Amino acid sequence: MEAAAAKPVLRVAAICGSLRKASFNRGLLRAAAEVCEDSIPGLRVDHLDISDLPLINTDLETDGGGFPPAVEAFRAKVCQADCFLFGAPEYNYSIATPLKNALDWASRGKNCWADKPAAIVSAGGGFGGGRSQYHLRQVGVFLDLHFINKPELCVQAFQQPPKFDSDGNLIDDQIRERLKQVLLSLQAFTLRLQKD
Amino acid sequence: MEAAAAKPVLRVAAICGSLRKASFNRGLLRAAAEVCEDSIPGLRVDHLDISDLPLINTDLETDGGGFPPAVEAFRAKVCQADCFLFGAPEYNYSIATPLKNALDWASRGKNCWADKPAAIVSAGGGFGGGRSQYHLRQVGVFLDLHFINKPELCVQAFQQPPKFDSDGNLIDDQIRERLKQVLLSLQAFTLRLQKD
Amino acid sequence: MEAAAAKPVLRVAAICGSLRKASFNRGLLRAAAEVCEDSIPGLRVDHLDISDLPLINTDLETDGGGFPPAVEAFRAKVCQADCFLFGAPEYNYSIATPLKNALDWASRGKNCWADKPAAIVSAGGGFGGGRSQYHLRQVGVFLDLHFINKPELCVQAFQQPPKFDSDGNLIDDQIRERLKQVLLSLQAFTLRLQKD
Amino acid sequence: MEAAAAKPVLRVAAICGSLRKASFNRGLLRAAAEVCEDSIPGLRVDHLDISDLPLINTDLETDGGGFPPAVEAFRAKVCQADCFLFGAPEYNYSIATPLKNALDWASRGKNCWADKPAAIVSAGGGFGGGRSQYHLRQVGVFLDLHFINKPELCVQAFQQPPKFDSDGNLIDDQIRERLKQVLLSLQAFTLRLQKD
Repeated sequence: MEAAAAKPVLRVAAICGSLRKASFNRGLLRAAAEVCEDSIPGLRVDHLDISDLPLINTDLETDGGGFPPAVEAFRAKVCQADCFLFGAPEYNYSIATPLKNALDWASRGKNCWADKPAAIVSAGGGFGGGRSQYHLRQVGVFLDLHFINKPELCVQAFQQPPKFDSDGNLIDDQIRERLKQVLLSLQAFTLRLQKD
Repeated sequence: MEAAAAKPVLRVAAICGSLRKASFNRGLLRAAAEVCEDSIPGLRVDHLDISDLPLINTDLETDGGGFPPAVEAFRAKVCQADCFLFGAPEYNYSIATPLKNALDWASRGKNCWADKPAAIVSAGGGFGGGRSQYHLRQVGVFLDLHFINKPELCVQAFQQPPKFDSDGNLIDDQIRERLKQVLLSLQAFTLRLQKD
Repeated sequence: MEAAAAKPVLRVAAICGSLRKASFNRGLLRAAAEVCEDSIPGLRVDHLDISDLPLINTDLETDGGGFPPAVEAFRAKVCQADCFLFGAPEYNYSIATPLKNALDWASRGKNCWADKPAAIVSAGGGFGGGRSQYHLRQVGVFLDLHFINKPELCVQAFQQPPKFDSDGNLIDDQIRERLKQVLLSLQAFTLRLQKD
Repeated sequence: MEAAAAKPVLRVAAICGSLRKASFNRGLLRAAAEVCEDSIPGLRVDHLDISDLPLINTDLETDGGGFPPAVEAFRAKVCQADCFLFGAPEYNYSIATPLKNALDWASRGKNCWADKPAAIVSAGGGFGGGRSQYHLRQVGVFLDLHFINKPELCVQAFQQPPKFDSDGNLIDDQIRERLKQVLLSLQAFTLRLQKD
């Protein structure tokens, strides 16, 4: 019997915009990994660490276009991903600075983000990170990211009942279900853009 | 003779969003300092260095609300300023990351930017940094900055004739004059908001 | 006896971005007028009707720079106001079209908005109109409006308990109090910018 | 011999955001139609007139969800299109009001824009309409439009040499070539999203 052409597993690179250990947004990404493992065959979440990237300064690039080692390693992982899931907290009504730093480094020289699908999830006070998401989408125009439009997920983290525990773990089943819908939409959009 | 009520000198804190030595935006701020010294009595530009600020991570704050030493020093200078001049390059259609980092650090705990006037100048390709300026203005809503509306200065740095030399020094007299108009507008708006 | 220098009454032109009769945003503006009458001496709200403005088309302007009668009448009222209060619903993640239409007409030729303070309130689903407010603020840069930064008021109109009755009247006392804070902030900012 | 499966002709609905007869943006759309006819087999541009749409007011909808006749006719054409080309002038740093009006009407009830690809071109002073494009992209998130990222086309219409004649016809060959690249990108993205 001919082997069934297994649908390839799509690799989602998950990037948390906050460096805080107990970040709610990191908690959303951990939950996303669990959701994929439990109930979305064909989608796997890999966490990409951005905590050791230097603050961007293109004077740190070598004349031949080389990057500091931590940047090179991060760029390689970005290039390998099929699509992206950003955990995007809002800092002062815009993109969290560590996330912007990571986006910038992997855009230099050969743009590692180009032509790949992406989704955004966020958690926080106010609009649950919403303002950050629209700035991030504008960045995506230049980076040539293809964001899914729907569903959007902006978790208003301080409304009752509690959404996260003190370690930043997601403890709300409704949000977990909405997170699953985001992941299914990202999977479908990635397959739609990839198929030949 | 009654002492003439000398108009107090307003202190403009100038912050360059790029860490590059030869940054055009840094060149704009140097030119702004020269313009004030030469022809705007009552306005003085102080450069604030942001190159030694760590990438923002609120886990670096102490339990009592203390900050790393470089952050404390920067915050003190922000608090002393009467108003701000941002040299705001555009990175990937949004705010330059080192500038956002500085904005974030001085917003933590007691917001050092609150209720102060500000102006933005930028230089770059495309719209000359324009997209970065509108994102920065949205950040200013939360930081409670009062931006001047006019004139705006977005230098399209790669159009002929050359606007900057290879060290990033402004060499275009028309732009220098437009820069002066920005500074005069910032001075007038600051006095208008300060007077009792 | 010397006449007490009565603080002049500031005239707030209130403009509702929706043409719907039962608009929640119109209800916010009605409540603002009541709040001023009841408890803010020195501030008076005048409603400006925008329902009879034609859809903007500069071919409707006469060669001498004249406007259709409804536009002329609206422009005159905008020019007389001391400051503005926009009731700004969100239509498809941006400014309500009738409001944008009004902003456009009064910006043609002599910009009637120039150099005046303004505040925004909004109500709706999702972020309560928040996305519309940031687009409106960007419009204000060109129109030379000076928006207050704080407090912001975005009423999430469909959360329990009900905020409006079926005619669009505000029935929530907490939001009425927050509305009052917006008006006091607008009054203070207007006086600060006006005084000589 | 089996007939070659002819690639179906994609229908691009072109919508000009300005109602002015001599609008440069309308001129860009006329040029787009010519370019397709001359050199892009498989892509056809249909102009959609929006000049007779009433200013949006949902009180004009009937209880059964019906729309005024001009709106119904416009909505039907939007539904038939494979993708969209917006000629998007900038009015006061945001979307041209007549375009926003059209977007709003076709989003009511059944959203006629949903899940279709789109491109934006614009012409004007300043950034050539650029600020309008980013607001339009945010609207597209809610409308579920899939915008191409590249190339972007913002024609700085008042730079020398002249780009348009006094009737708004495009007379610049370089811009015509860039317009062709936008159309090819829209065609490719539409096919990529459509194919099964």
